[in-house]
Amino acid sequence: MRIEIVAVGTELLLGQIADTNSAWLGDRLAAAGVTSHFHQAVGDNHERITLAFRTALARSDGIIVCGGLGPTQDDITREAIADVMGVELVRNQEIVDLIAGFFQTRGRTMSANNARQADVPVGAAIIPQVMGTAPGLICPLGNKVIYAVPGVPYEMAEMFERGILPDLRARMAAAGEQSVIVSRTVRTWGASESGLAEALQGRIDALDANDAVEPDGAPAGSVTLAFLASGIEGIKVRITARAATLDAAAAVLDVEEKEVRKAIEAELGDIVFGVDDESMEVAVASQLIARGLTLGVAESLTGGLIASRLVNVPGASAWFRGGVVAYHEQVKFDVLGVPVGPVVTEAAAAAMAEGVRRATGADVGLGITGVAGPDDQEGVAPGTIFVGLSLASESTSTRALRLPGDRERVRQYGAISALDLLRRALIDLEAPSAGREA
Amino acid sequence: MRIEIVAVGTELLLGQIADTNSAWLGDRLAAAGVTSHFHQAVGDNHERITLAFRTALARSDGIIVCGGLGPTQDDITREAIADVMGVELVRNQEIVDLIAGFFQTRGRTMSANNARQADVPVGAAIIPQVMGTAPGLICPLGNKVIYAVPGVPYEMAEMFERGILPDLRARMAAAGEQSVIVSRTVRTWGASESGLAEALQGRIDALDANDAVEPDGAPAGSVTLAFLASGIEGIKVRITARAATLDAAAAVLDVEEKEVRKAIEAELGDIVFGVDDESMEVAVASQLIARGLTLGVAESLTGGLIASRLVNVPGASAWFRGGVVAYHEQVKFDVLGVPVGPVVTEAAAAAMAEGVRRATGADVGLGITGVAGPDDQEGVAPGTIFVGLSLASESTSTRALRLPGDRERVRQYGAISALDLLRRALIDLEAPSAGREA
Repeated sequence: MRIEIVAVGTELLLGQIADTNSAWLGDRLAAAGVTSHFHQAVGDNHERITLAFRTALARSDGIIVCGGLGPTQDDITREAIADVMGVELVRNQEIVDLIAGFFQTRGRTMSANNARQADVPVGAAIIPQVMGTAPGLICPLGNKVIYAVPGVPYEMAEMFERGILPDLRARMAAAGEQSVIVSRTVRTWGASESGLAEALQGRIDALDANDAVEPDGAPAGSVTLAFLASGIEGIKVRITARAATLDAAAAVLDVEEKEVRKAIEAELGDIVFGVDDESMEVAVASQLIARGLTLGVAESLTGGLIASRLVNVPGASAWFRGGVVAYHEQVKFDVLGVPVGPVVTEAAAAAMAEGVRRATGADVGLGITGVAGPDDQEGVAPGTIFVGLSLASESTSTRALRLPGDRERVRQYGAISALDLLRRALIDLEAPSAGREA
Repeated sequence: MRIEIVAVGTELLLGQIADTNSAWLGDRLAAAGVTSHFHQAVGDNHERITLAFRTALARSDGIIVCGGLGPTQDDITREAIADVMGVELVRNQEIVDLIAGFFQTRGRTMSANNARQADVPVGAAIIPQVMGTAPGLICPLGNKVIYAVPGVPYEMAEMFERGILPDLRARMAAAGEQSVIVSRTVRTWGASESGLAEALQGRIDALDANDAVEPDGAPAGSVTLAFLASGIEGIKVRITARAATLDAAAAVLDVEEKEVRKAIEAELGDIVFGVDDESMEVAVASQLIARGLTLGVAESLTGGLIASRLVNVPGASAWFRGGVVAYHEQVKFDVLGVPVGPVVTEAAAAAMAEGVRRATGADVGLGITGVAGPDDQEGVAPGTIFVGLSLASESTSTRALRLPGDRERVRQYGAISALDLLRRALIDLEAPSAGREA
């Protein structure tokens, strides 16, 4: 099954937004074992959209169209699909009623334009909307298919999982295509891409020797490793396995993940903090929960970034007490009890950690101060950060770090670096619940 | 001159990276008055790359190829271009020497693979490298052209400006094409896309009547409007002008921006908060600076998100004092002085605003509490937020809002909604510096 993604929207051609939808879909399609040889982007123009569809249908088995399903006059994906199918558009009254209801529950009146979103090519099936107004479409053309979803990323993603993927799987099963490609990502913080590549060279050589692997035509059971430098999220090692079933692929991934972790640990130490969606804040949360500890955070240059990452972890209220954004030095003195004096120092970071532990009633206090730039502060160079850590059962410790990049990147690197120091300190606590007595 | 961008690399199809190069090139091409009707992405496969080139040449006047010029065996853009041109590749010894020199000055030895980067299709001109090893190519095919540049973003950008743009300009001048396309984005918060479209229907009709406008083939002096639903950043109205010169286009944009603002204001009130890169936090900062006021923020469900957006505004230290992330109710009581009792209420939001104004010594206090979900809290439904605003010279005011979406979106919408309420309240202060006496 070869699927071509066609992104519709003049804003993509003009570079006003980057096409993240196609990247997301490419990743999900690969995971499902669906081949994707081409992507296209095209503007809001009927003739050119139909040309893009015809080009795609000539070289692929199906299309996923993103965008152009909105209510305005430049949203013409529905018309273009009907044209390529050679059928009429018919307004579906049930959908009109749903859209009207959507507006009604929000105390607004549906505009006449919105009714266009209920137009459906004859012969197409609907993917009902659950988040917005435009339904998705499944449009058969002989033994090929056009799927259409909105360009709004979360609507697109939800409809792909619920409406497109099951249909694709059914088509692949009918065609006797059974292999799946599954990836697992081992996430690291604190090593360089080339350092990781060297640590894993032995594994890469062993996998290469195992079978002659092709990028998108690998034999069953094959495994590959790839490196993804993900900026503020560290460097990821992606393990990809192709196998006959999901279970078989998962078994292969389990084995290879152990090998990868062993090789990294041997060369670079404890730099793996999670797998797949396990962010650094999830890793911190796991350590806190395992030890029954609560956390408070005092932030200067990161300005709330660490706290806002922590509250994104589901169930954060069980272990996150809160924080103080001490941007102005007077807030450090008044709210956190930092001694009046220089505030870009290790001593200030320690006092912030202790102060926020007291203020929020937490078991653990994390404090971060430093210089995001572009200018020096108190004679300290941009990119310098100081992290303080106050643990209930231990004395307060501090660390100084130098980080690369501009203002925004120093903040982002500072936030994840501070969380990583906290993660390592929690792991080093002798045993789970060591901090409970405090 | 119609240029199609073809991005080469299997990692793009697999979604391992988003194609930011095409967005960047699209923006630069539009600014130069070059039409771009299609983008394609294709993997590292000779047959499919040549098919993508042939498809592009059939519907465009030229191609910019990004990627596939590296030293490894899967970098085959050079071979594909030579194939489409129907010529041989010839190794250019001068480039081999340059690449060898590049390695030598870094104390490394050139690998045999790197010499492949000196292969040039017969008849092609070179864009010399100044940052890496692979030169760019300008490859004529009759009166059409293929430009090839590396996929590394900064190498691509540098070569585009130095090598491609002048060549494109010369081709356009020879063809008598002289126009530029410039866009400006008016940013709104609080209206639906269809509501905005209705408010601006009169302008759209007037522009349509002015000249028969095509999205990307408009006559000189023409203006078009488009809507971009940008999720947590609100809805953008993009005004695009095509004119003979940059100055002429700017003048057209100035006139149309006034018309657009007038039409929106008349139907929907004060929902325009900025233009182009002016985010909501920048709009808030402008109002605070104009009035000489400082700000403190108390956040519950948004967990530091508002503070972290505010500190991203350059010069934030002049007006942002800091904040309290009062995630656990005890932090609300202890640090902010919220009366013990229910904390998901308008009264709690008001007390948080007043408390953080006191704690941080700010002129203005903003407080936000509510329920991100997925479960009810204190009998309050997910998506409910309460915003409190404590202004030095006024009594404290509160607002209750219902927001759509999951946990993460409620947080994001909550943050921008609270900032928008603050922005409007500041505008409503009778005159700049009205709050100074406090």
